[in-house]
Amino acid sequence: MLAAPLIERKRDGGALTPEEWSALVAAYTAGRVPDYQMAALLMAVVFRGLERHELAALTDAMLASGSRLAFEGWATPRVDKHSTGGVGDKVSLVLAPLVAACGVAVPMMSGRGLGHTGGTLDKLEAIPGFRTGLSLVEAKAQTVKIGCVMIGQTAEIAPADRRLYALRDVTGTVEAIPLIAASIMSKKLAEGLNALVLDVKRGSGAFLPALEQALGLAQTMIALGEDRGCPTVALLTAMDRPLGRACGNALETEEAILGLRGEGPPDLMAVTYALGVEMLLAAGIDQTSTKARQRLENALASGIAAEKFEQVIEAQGGNPHVVEDPSLLPQAGAVEVFCAPATGVVTAVEPRTIGRAIVAMGGGRVTVEDQIDPTVGCVITAKPGDKVLAGEPIASVFAKDAGGIELGFAALSKAIGIDADLGEQPLPLISHRVTKDGVEELPVSRDRRL
Amino acid sequence: MLAAPLIERKRDGGALTPEEWSALVAAYTAGRVPDYQMAALLMAVVFRGLERHELAALTDAMLASGSRLAFEGWATPRVDKHSTGGVGDKVSLVLAPLVAACGVAVPMMSGRGLGHTGGTLDKLEAIPGFRTGLSLVEAKAQTVKIGCVMIGQTAEIAPADRRLYALRDVTGTVEAIPLIAASIMSKKLAEGLNALVLDVKRGSGAFLPALEQALGLAQTMIALGEDRGCPTVALLTAMDRPLGRACGNALETEEAILGLRGEGPPDLMAVTYALGVEMLLAAGIDQTSTKARQRLENALASGIAAEKFEQVIEAQGGNPHVVEDPSLLPQAGAVEVFCAPATGVVTAVEPRTIGRAIVAMGGGRVTVEDQIDPTVGCVITAKPGDKVLAGEPIASVFAKDAGGIELGFAALSKAIGIDADLGEQPLPLISHRVTKDGVEELPVSRDRRL
Repeated sequence: MLAAPLIERKRDGGALTPEEWSALVAAYTAGRVPDYQMAALLMAVVFRGLERHELAALTDAMLASGSRLAFEGWATPRVDKHSTGGVGDKVSLVLAPLVAACGVAVPMMSGRGLGHTGGTLDKLEAIPGFRTGLSLVEAKAQTVKIGCVMIGQTAEIAPADRRLYALRDVTGTVEAIPLIAASIMSKKLAEGLNALVLDVKRGSGAFLPALEQALGLAQTMIALGEDRGCPTVALLTAMDRPLGRACGNALETEEAILGLRGEGPPDLMAVTYALGVEMLLAAGIDQTSTKARQRLENALASGIAAEKFEQVIEAQGGNPHVVEDPSLLPQAGAVEVFCAPATGVVTAVEPRTIGRAIVAMGGGRVTVEDQIDPTVGCVITAKPGDKVLAGEPIASVFAKDAGGIELGFAALSKAIGIDADLGEQPLPLISHRVTKDGVEELPVSRDRRL
Repeated sequence: MLAAPLIERKRDGGALTPEEWSALVAAYTAGRVPDYQMAALLMAVVFRGLERHELAALTDAMLASGSRLAFEGWATPRVDKHSTGGVGDKVSLVLAPLVAACGVAVPMMSGRGLGHTGGTLDKLEAIPGFRTGLSLVEAKAQTVKIGCVMIGQTAEIAPADRRLYALRDVTGTVEAIPLIAASIMSKKLAEGLNALVLDVKRGSGAFLPALEQALGLAQTMIALGEDRGCPTVALLTAMDRPLGRACGNALETEEAILGLRGEGPPDLMAVTYALGVEMLLAAGIDQTSTKARQRLENALASGIAAEKFEQVIEAQGGNPHVVEDPSLLPQAGAVEVFCAPATGVVTAVEPRTIGRAIVAMGGGRVTVEDQIDPTVGCVITAKPGDKVLAGEPIASVFAKDAGGIELGFAALSKAIGIDADLGEQPLPLISHRVTKDGVEELPVSRDRRL
């Protein structure tokens, strides 16, 4: 495999053929193309992009590098959700059992937190005993048995993507829409899905903050899914403030459990229901949003959704009693209340500052090998637009010790803005619905935060 | 050293500080920054370029990675010439002894052929016994003793450049003006020069064919030299046809010897004199071009220049009698005359086709480890603009065997165009003079080929 001429062609604005992408990814995975050539090519892709046929070929090649979940002959529809990630985004923990409780199988493969954003696997592993490292055989069996499994990317799935992602992470080539799309879709398409729903975050705390970038990523992933026989829909949601109140692994798991019990914060539930409606529609369970929403609300109110989560936890080796008694989750060594430093309107709760503070407190990773402390984080009750009085409690910090509390306080002081008036409006919580047919701007509710 | 944030900054159009370049190159040379991060950064530089201060810092860092020739306290001026390379470009072999014969020390460090262009070291090594791998101590002693040394880049000189060049060669990051300039200048500035003269080739056979690219490279290198206390001047010369008649290592060495004996082809001598004049002016040996030219012509006519080449050959272990008797150079196994296939005007002698054929015949390298056959090549007497008759001998092919002759004939048939009229004029042989003060377009002689 002579990689240099391919690098030069991409550098000069040309395209690689599907056969070239296929051979290149295979040679790279087999170690016959070195990291330094792939790094140069990836940087050229950052500047030149990928044509639609190249993106499909790259994704196919990554998919072909590993195994897939295969559900041939099983009639139950399979639908998954993917989020581009944010701070406080524990939607998956509520949504997967909730949708599974409505008769849609959810074979969910998630990631770990890296950078300022959290990861579903880390949140699940806050549950004592919970195993995310299932094999594909185990994952398939559990999906068929209880309709839901929540696992990490196994060594069997898209190994080329694992290697490429690790390389991109250290070569400044993460922030390229086609590479992001290919990475996500190579894993999702390996899940044997009938449809996929995307939660594409935008705003200051999102991976791609600008609306145009978020729309571009959504459309790229939708094209890729549709081209590969997997109908795909995306919702654009706000990540200019954390979602819900809890930020930090065990704290978010607790909030997700509260959500499944009907006690979740309204913004978390609004996003969860909106995505759940899309999943039920895509699965063909319901024909209208209203009916789908009703079905989801019933599954929640009846306790079937919470019970489904208990089944998942039990099947994956965790202690299912955490759903009844979240105090069984690991608890932080120190807790302190954070009070508003001034009277006024909350103008901002900056997610990146919060996310970085959680990493600094030990609740996230700087390198993939880092061990994390699931107990640390914060619960912020104030939202942009809220009126607060000086000295009023607006958050709690959960830390290992006094040093951690200090880090948390410093981050909250910086992240939470208070001023005489709101200034810029927060982003509408759910602003756009994107399908293969186009972009629909959704009506903004009177409280933009919901 | 955290390289990823530096890669991201360059990718996004920012600049690295001199301290960052310095630390990065040091860490890379020490193996603490891996090739894949450097490859991604280099590709980002291909797209984003380098600011003047960054280029200076990168060059300094590469220079600082190794040793230099130091001539403190030695009054003799040192001046070198660098060519961006072409086909048939044996100027260095004539120029270095010629200028040294005029009282300017020439500590010349050259490269090997790679791609379609030849390299001075390969031409010198066609001389039986000639050693180009001198240490810096040997090189300095020889320079002081006889005023001229012709060596390769030693392991002591700019090791960071060696590693970077090898990486660029396989990652599509060779063709970036700032990287080319930094690579060349990091070596030239290690020679302890008082001034530097550049021969920047343009035209189809040049590394950077377009005039604007050639001018850009010249100006970038001049800025770098001047910023580092080494006055630098460039001439732009034609590489839309081979220089001189001989192409191939031993054949070119023979033609260079003929040049030193006053029997060189006019275009080779015109370029040699023009560069020599710049070198004598830069060294302060003469104050006017006319006087400098006269001095060079005298050194040649008197035989002192040829004698200087004998001294260099002898000092470096070669057989000096080749200057008197070029038949002592290794001889090809097979020689055949190539005749004009038609009557008309020669419209083109395409250097890349010739250069690639020599590589295919065994006279150049595909990888740096390849051994080369110094005897192969061709001597082309026809120049663009010449009128030829069908069947008239216009070239000779020198090869190992009949297969090589066939390769040579095929290349000449393709490279030499013959038509009813000239069509496009060849480039003026020496078209521009570039200094720190600007670009001067030189008057075109009636025969543009001279």
